[in-house]
Amino acid sequence: MQIGIVGLGRMGGNIVRRLLRGKHGVLAYDRNAEAVAALAAEGAGGAQSLEALVAALPQPRVVWVMLPAGAPTEETIAVLGALLAADDVIIDGGNTFYKDDVRRAEGLAQKGIHYVDVGTSGGVWGLERGYCMMVGAEAAIFERLEPVFQTLSPGYGAIERTRGRNAPDDRAERGYIHAGPVGAGHFVKMVHNGIEYGLMQAYAEGFDILRTKAKEGLPGGHRFDLNLVDIAEVWRRGSVVSSWLLDLIALALAGDVKLDRFSGAVADSGEGRWTIDAAVEQGVPVPVLATALFARFRSQSQHTYADRLLSAMRFGFGGHVEIPQ
Amino acid sequence: MQIGIVGLGRMGGNIVRRLLRGKHGVLAYDRNAEAVAALAAEGAGGAQSLEALVAALPQPRVVWVMLPAGAPTEETIAVLGALLAADDVIIDGGNTFYKDDVRRAEGLAQKGIHYVDVGTSGGVWGLERGYCMMVGAEAAIFERLEPVFQTLSPGYGAIERTRGRNAPDDRAERGYIHAGPVGAGHFVKMVHNGIEYGLMQAYAEGFDILRTKAKEGLPGGHRFDLNLVDIAEVWRRGSVVSSWLLDLIALALAGDVKLDRFSGAVADSGEGRWTIDAAVEQGVPVPVLATALFARFRSQSQHTYADRLLSAMRFGFGGHVEIPQ
Amino acid sequence: MQIGIVGLGRMGGNIVRRLLRGKHGVLAYDRNAEAVAALAAEGAGGAQSLEALVAALPQPRVVWVMLPAGAPTEETIAVLGALLAADDVIIDGGNTFYKDDVRRAEGLAQKGIHYVDVGTSGGVWGLERGYCMMVGAEAAIFERLEPVFQTLSPGYGAIERTRGRNAPDDRAERGYIHAGPVGAGHFVKMVHNGIEYGLMQAYAEGFDILRTKAKEGLPGGHRFDLNLVDIAEVWRRGSVVSSWLLDLIALALAGDVKLDRFSGAVADSGEGRWTIDAAVEQGVPVPVLATALFARFRSQSQHTYADRLLSAMRFGFGGHVEIPQ
Amino acid sequence: MQIGIVGLGRMGGNIVRRLLRGKHGVLAYDRNAEAVAALAAEGAGGAQSLEALVAALPQPRVVWVMLPAGAPTEETIAVLGALLAADDVIIDGGNTFYKDDVRRAEGLAQKGIHYVDVGTSGGVWGLERGYCMMVGAEAAIFERLEPVFQTLSPGYGAIERTRGRNAPDDRAERGYIHAGPVGAGHFVKMVHNGIEYGLMQAYAEGFDILRTKAKEGLPGGHRFDLNLVDIAEVWRRGSVVSSWLLDLIALALAGDVKLDRFSGAVADSGEGRWTIDAAVEQGVPVPVLATALFARFRSQSQHTYADRLLSAMRFGFGGHVEIPQ
Repeated sequence: MQIGIVGLGRMGGNIVRRLLRGKHGVLAYDRNAEAVAALAAEGAGGAQSLEALVAALPQPRVVWVMLPAGAPTEETIAVLGALLAADDVIIDGGNTFYKDDVRRAEGLAQKGIHYVDVGTSGGVWGLERGYCMMVGAEAAIFERLEPVFQTLSPGYGAIERTRGRNAPDDRAERGYIHAGPVGAGHFVKMVHNGIEYGLMQAYAEGFDILRTKAKEGLPGGHRFDLNLVDIAEVWRRGSVVSSWLLDLIALALAGDVKLDRFSGAVADSGEGRWTIDAAVEQGVPVPVLATALFARFRSQSQHTYADRLLSAMRFGFGGHVEIPQ
Repeated sequence: MQIGIVGLGRMGGNIVRRLLRGKHGVLAYDRNAEAVAALAAEGAGGAQSLEALVAALPQPRVVWVMLPAGAPTEETIAVLGALLAADDVIIDGGNTFYKDDVRRAEGLAQKGIHYVDVGTSGGVWGLERGYCMMVGAEAAIFERLEPVFQTLSPGYGAIERTRGRNAPDDRAERGYIHAGPVGAGHFVKMVHNGIEYGLMQAYAEGFDILRTKAKEGLPGGHRFDLNLVDIAEVWRRGSVVSSWLLDLIALALAGDVKLDRFSGAVADSGEGRWTIDAAVEQGVPVPVLATALFARFRSQSQHTYADRLLSAMRFGFGGHVEIPQ
Repeated sequence: MQIGIVGLGRMGGNIVRRLLRGKHGVLAYDRNAEAVAALAAEGAGGAQSLEALVAALPQPRVVWVMLPAGAPTEETIAVLGALLAADDVIIDGGNTFYKDDVRRAEGLAQKGIHYVDVGTSGGVWGLERGYCMMVGAEAAIFERLEPVFQTLSPGYGAIERTRGRNAPDDRAERGYIHAGPVGAGHFVKMVHNGIEYGLMQAYAEGFDILRTKAKEGLPGGHRFDLNLVDIAEVWRRGSVVSSWLLDLIALALAGDVKLDRFSGAVADSGEGRWTIDAAVEQGVPVPVLATALFARFRSQSQHTYADRLLSAMRFGFGGHVEIPQ
Repeated sequence: MQIGIVGLGRMGGNIVRRLLRGKHGVLAYDRNAEAVAALAAEGAGGAQSLEALVAALPQPRVVWVMLPAGAPTEETIAVLGALLAADDVIIDGGNTFYKDDVRRAEGLAQKGIHYVDVGTSGGVWGLERGYCMMVGAEAAIFERLEPVFQTLSPGYGAIERTRGRNAPDDRAERGYIHAGPVGAGHFVKMVHNGIEYGLMQAYAEGFDILRTKAKEGLPGGHRFDLNLVDIAEVWRRGSVVSSWLLDLIALALAGDVKLDRFSGAVADSGEGRWTIDAAVEQGVPVPVLATALFARFRSQSQHTYADRLLSAMRFGFGGHVEIPQ
């Protein structure tokens, strides 16, 4: 089908490429004209402006916005809302807060424009592996867009099928689902990322124990000099902790087991934060997910005010002077 | 090679079977004579006692003990230590604390007996998938035992190789490693299980948010009725959180999305606890791994004394009377 | 001064009493006529309706609303907003979300009505000890209300003064502060309650260790039969952990060391939740405060879906069947 | 009574002084002769060696060891064990692991020497406030030593008595208890310190929220410029979170609200770690106490290996390059 893509960064550019491989007609736009030119050279149509993009697409139009969450996405969708017409579709494939999806959809519905939220996982590997997609949309619009999801998703691949699965459709097995009405796609993706934080932190803590053991020894004389590269590799085979994140760890450690090129100041995204807010709103205990988020917050400062207040209390009752790092 | 296996439970029995498939000569023993008979029917030799097992094996003997950690393993190894002779090998394939390995090896070395600890992951799926093994042993003994590890391990399989990996040997890629001297195998397995706790808890919390959302709605009217079966399935394809544990979740939810047959009183094992002790001993912060362990402790009581003390304090300052569940 | 009080529950009733002791003129209203009559018998004026209350107060009027946060407070303030006139003051002494304060103040300012938020700590002990108050208000309005705060607050009492304190005013030492503009009072109170959750959970966990030790013994034979009543009492004297919450623990344990009359299903309030949201919004790591909140969530169910999913995974990889509680 | 004190540091020196004020005869020893001379000038007897100390004390002797836990205490007690005779008493007033107490007591009992463990809280304020003491000892020995505990403890003071308390003795109200047999004193003190970690972290996190709010503002425009000095002060009066640690916070903030002279690299002690080990050993969930300990571990490194592994994973799946701090 014909589709416009707005935002040609790492994610958007690869989505264009995968759609082109699937023989869709893609019209691409980005504020950065060089990004447009690069994809035009690979077979996409290029638009010079949002207006031009809208003008060139056949009706009912489909425009996929793939921009950073927040102002860039918000503003682009506002402009598109003004340019598009009844029965056109705007897809937000980024990491938007699900309550913003609901709000936007209500606004656009005034003009008869349909809004779709697609939670998209796969990162820079999506071009090769395909994207896992969780879609929030009206049912009819979801069906209209399925040719796009079929192309972008991984498909069955070599993954063993789940025994006993007895579901009315096989879309989940091909890598995309209709999660529910508008907002549901980003809600599911939000929780996905919350889980991702927890998984990452669990691996990180475990390898930190293994490394410390190797480097610093223990009182009592038990000292193992462990090969972290091989440990990550062997766990990929037959162990309970095998996963795609572990594959990435094996890859990273094979390149540099000391990880010296990484600062360790770990950024966090909206989705990690919103997951905690959603759990708090619903009264669900999520100690591991929250702790994983807070580990990132903590990594972003050398020392927090909280740390210094602890030092001050220790000085207050015990006269302890903390040794500077 | 010829090998004796002591302990024919779920793990031990499948290890015998996989070794038989690999054309090894297996002599099997268990206190339960029926278990011995069953495996004898599948081609293993059967021993009626530890003495008989030791008498029947060619020297230097190899005996793999696959029993519950603690007293059963400890006592069996003590008896074997008395029966075996110099250059024989005892393998502990269970979940022993690594400091106990070091202690035992020192004792057995007095008689020239070699001790090997094998951390074994794979659970009830090992017969089919192969076992991931982390071995602590003297180098020469590790090499002597390699035919056994080669048979039990998964091998390369269909798993994509790690790019940039440039390691002196490919054992890790075949599913087993020589982790280091005695104790190192169980140390690495211990941390593996600590990570496993964290991963499991991260998934469990995330699905709890998704489920609550579906069942109870939210103030503000955002209510999604999410299909957890399909969500687990779709995340298996191309998403960042795909893993073997997620495969098991998809399997469990496909069978019963309500999980009503599970009590939710979750047992914990020594390895989860020792991981926290090891981290505390080394001063490594492991908030997620510890929190995951404590979630299991908490699940084992309906209410803790701590909970009641919280209620008592709330009553003390606010006159709050907690509503009985 | 003359003041109207709306809401004569445990908190509001005692506020009326303490104001009467301070020789203020109090006009009291509650939906429950018996509560009005009871306080009238103690010397307060009684109003039969909000309209009557407003009509009877001298201008500029001051009305203190002391109702449960949420709908009861919201609706009452809306009605009062309609009844009051320019330069009148509405005080919300309950546990309102600080962003709601800001919104309400903006609305009321259209009519020239002043809005004040007072975070009030002290619970059922406030009549006797006085209330600790954190006030968000315009500076001139704060000053207008100070006679009320002076009466309600504890005053210097017997508490030792902070050495080196060199502050422009001594209000904090008398038990109330002008925290900042509207919203600041409830913001500070919110964090106060977040800290309270963390403190309570720390004590609760510690006593749980002491109790378990006493009741169940330990492998290795170290078994102490500890007297929790005396431990709580002795820590009140000279120890680093002495606090008012510990005083309440000593009181509760002296009454019933088993705490059998408390269910252990521990309620949580908006302020504990909002504290976590505020920390997430600002990127401040608060692992202890969040964990304390989640311990309460967890106490509210016998088993969570997360627990059952852990059981299901354990069954999936290890064939473990959890023993029913 | 006559008592020897070994170790004249911050704690030991003040214990000597408080005993002198109580008219006990004190013989003081420290490796540092200047410390001995200083206390001799204040009225203590001074010993030049452990041998001289033992020789000068009347039988049955009492020697209180007040040294850093670990080797200094262990070695001193070994030497004293060789010098002392049947019915003499060694008191360890430091922070020893309770299982070490049990081991030592068993050894000394061979010679008929009694061993006593005293968990001592109060820090540098003990001279003035008195020490809170938790004693593990045989009952008869505890009674023999009571004159010492009576002098060192705070006594009733001005603290309000616990209503409804109906205990056979009032020692707890005077600030010391016979916690149980040898080891029980340090066990209770260990849990006391575990709780202390949790309380400190709860305050620290709360003030970190208040400070961030003040300094950095919030999206949405709610920005309060909060006075942390006054907030700490006001919470001392009538609030639920008042405590001695809060008194110390008020003191620290009054001196320097920015806390710039504190590094924020927060040390931890054995007791915080042993509390977690004890909870793990007993299966008691202590997420807040453990998280508080791990916050200190984390503060001791600028970035952990775990942090860098998180960065590496983020780079692996998303191409994210973390911004250096």
